[in-house]
Amino acid sequence: MKRSSLADRYCSIARSSAELVDGWTFVILREIFLHNRRFDGLQAQTGMSPRSLTLRLKLLVEEKILEKTAYQPAPKRYEYRLTPKGLDLWPMVVMLKQWGDKWQGPWEGDQPPLGLTHKGHDHELTLEISCKTCNELVDAHSGESYISAPMAAERAAMAKTHEKKIKGIV
Amino acid sequence: MKRSSLADRYCSIARSSAELVDGWTFVILREIFLHNRRFDGLQAQTGMSPRSLTLRLKLLVEEKILEKTAYQPAPKRYEYRLTPKGLDLWPMVVMLKQWGDKWQGPWEGDQPPLGLTHKGHDHELTLEISCKTCNELVDAHSGESYISAPMAAERAAMAKTHEKKIKGIV
Repeated sequence: MKRSSLADRYCSIARSSAELVDGWTFVILREIFLHNRRFDGLQAQTGMSPRSLTLRLKLLVEEKILEKTAYQPAPKRYEYRLTPKGLDLWPMVVMLKQWGDKWQGPWEGDQPPLGLTHKGHDHELTLEISCKTCNELVDAHSGESYISAPMAAERAAMAKTHEKKIKGIV
Repeated sequence: MKRSSLADRYCSIARSSAELVDGWTFVILREIFLHNRRFDGLQAQTGMSPRSLTLRLKLLVEEKILEKTAYQPAPKRYEYRLTPKGLDLWPMVVMLKQWGDKWQGPWEGDQPPLGLTHKGHDHELTLEISCKTCNELVDAHSGESYISAPMAAERAAMAKTHEKKIKGIV
């Protein structure tokens, strides 16, 4: 199963999943959101090997999630900053944090490992999810999915291929 | 770099990332949210090999994200349903969809591959993120992170190990 097969699907969830690769991406994003933006610091706090970290950062730059910026002219030294596309991943990172705070503990003193305050306010920041149109709070039971015509066509083709595979035709 | 090293960190983002493994988890979750809950249908629409799909479903059941329920007594046939922990991943799946709708296109007719309506309402469901305490809309610039004492201790230890590694001591 090649990873690219997910990247080629007519589905934004599949393509996004393929692009984010695996959990290391989120740990790198966590570090960048914590302003730990340089290779050495990223290596220390992710614990990745230099080779894995280099490859992953290269990929994230290619995907325009991060950009490499010189912070020192001579000798040239770089740091990694979030692009608008990368900044848009912030809700995902925080939702992952909230899910983990709830389901991956126990945590000492029942305190989340990483706290978040609402900047300029005097309180914690916990994300709440609502409908943009009517402002009602929503959860897993609030949505009804429907599949667009091109995605439906792809699904029908996949079902057909699967059926042939089972019957041993392909 | 063993995956378990992420699962062992004192960080809810790292542990959650390790548990979700990679993009295939989200594609399986997408299918289950689309009510495609049986092995055969999951195999067809994810395109995973029977072996990979079996392993991944087993992991998701072990992690209590999915549960295996018999839908037919004889011969016994199973389907996979979301547990409360799994249902809590819904905002992540929808945020991933919204991020992909925006950044992974173009999509035919500018329509997202997967649409979502607000159940019981006459409109689309687009998630909006706000602060639970003051209801203000928030984005990547709204939060200020702080690190708990046990996570700070782990980070200091990792920085020390990294320094030693660079100096060739370990």
